[in-house]
Amino acid sequence: MPHDLETLAARLQMLEDREAIREIIARYGPLADRGDAPALAALWEEDGTYEVTGFATARGRAEIAALIDAPYHRELMAGGCAHVLGPVAVTLSANSATAVGHSLVFRHHEGTFSVLRVSANRWTLRRDPHDGQWRVPHRANALLDGAEAARMLLSGPVGAP
Amino acid sequence: MPHDLETLAARLQMLEDREAIREIIARYGPLADRGDAPALAALWEEDGTYEVTGFATARGRAEIAALIDAPYHRELMAGGCAHVLGPVAVTLSANSATAVGHSLVFRHHEGTFSVLRVSANRWTLRRDPHDGQWRVPHRANALLDGAEAARMLLSGPVGAP
Amino acid sequence: MPHDLETLAARLQMLEDREAIREIIARYGPLADRGDAPALAALWEEDGTYEVTGFATARGRAEIAALIDAPYHRELMAGGCAHVLGPVAVTLSANSATAVGHSLVFRHHEGTFSVLRVSANRWTLRRDPHDGQWRVPHRANALLDGAEAARMLLSGPVGAP
Repeated sequence: MPHDLETLAARLQMLEDREAIREIIARYGPLADRGDAPALAALWEEDGTYEVTGFATARGRAEIAALIDAPYHRELMAGGCAHVLGPVAVTLSANSATAVGHSLVFRHHEGTFSVLRVSANRWTLRRDPHDGQWRVPHRANALLDGAEAARMLLSGPVGAP
Repeated sequence: MPHDLETLAARLQMLEDREAIREIIARYGPLADRGDAPALAALWEEDGTYEVTGFATARGRAEIAALIDAPYHRELMAGGCAHVLGPVAVTLSANSATAVGHSLVFRHHEGTFSVLRVSANRWTLRRDPHDGQWRVPHRANALLDGAEAARMLLSGPVGAP
Repeated sequence: MPHDLETLAARLQMLEDREAIREIIARYGPLADRGDAPALAALWEEDGTYEVTGFATARGRAEIAALIDAPYHRELMAGGCAHVLGPVAVTLSANSATAVGHSLVFRHHEGTFSVLRVSANRWTLRRDPHDGQWRVPHRANALLDGAEAARMLLSGPVGAP
């Protein structure tokens, strides 16, 4: 098959997009655990939403940052915690994408670590038409405690390979 | 170093292959936890094998799907579970590949999460000559409970960088 | 936007670099758990450093290999253990890079798995000017037990997207 520059550039763009999306999601955990609320909120779009089933729905960057600055999160950090994400299955479609995967929260207490939360996550991401950057309009997170709602987050546009 | 189109296309193909392999493995956990047996089995080749040491060896997509539809797995899902994979070290060789990494199963019970399984995994993958898609001819999984068999899965074609 | 070969080659190189870095880090866990001390140490530069806060600082490949060959690690392996890394946020700058992420150590004991260590990690990586391979001059690891030192590892060159 002969190759042309335009086709190669389009294939390259697709890989760069997937890489950018994976990078954003990889930044979430370290930002949460070092408590950098503004940088964490900046992963989202200005009016993006972070919906944590049964806990809170934060609308807009100020509310998302407030989750990280809240006493609950600061106490978790002070005792020792880790927000560890699993790999994400990414479905890319030109200027938007869906990423589906797990997240884990570990907590330290008196020399011992335990598993505090095990959740399903569905991220939607969008390329900003102005600066070309990928950001998060919406992330949904739900505890995998047997509730159908959490399993639903793992469904949808993630098709067979 | 001067660049030519054919060389760039070959380098791009290699990245696309690694991305496709990582994506397949990233899909396993969400598909297992939402119980989508046919889509999960379709990650494997028609007659692919999933070998879980000391538990079961499923041969062919029907048997792999049956693992997910089995009462044991359905009860795990009903109570709350997460199949979370670690990063994979991928050794790519034209139309086949090996990916080595960990997998974790977390279980929910009465508001608490525990670590049910911690395993070593060796995936082999192959590019289908007809449709160009990567699929799994074989996955081996073994509990990292001290048995040499599990450690062996983490050995082999994964060389020094 | 018109595309030229040099620009595409540079973009491709950046993706290959990120892929190489991710691959090195993905190899650490399997190499640790199969106890392959020389291959694990070879992820580092000849005089690279692995600093585990409150535990040990290994300087040079021989000392890094010695961590894996030490009775403590061999007993952990014999009982069953898994060194599972989280995703890494990678900041790439021509011939050097920083990767930030979590690592988990799970331990098996009498049929049960527990979480032994939950740590923050900061890897620095460098491209060898002679063979073009990426290797690790320095990795810092600290338990996320509430200590500021560990949170600091998650800070720094990892900026907003």
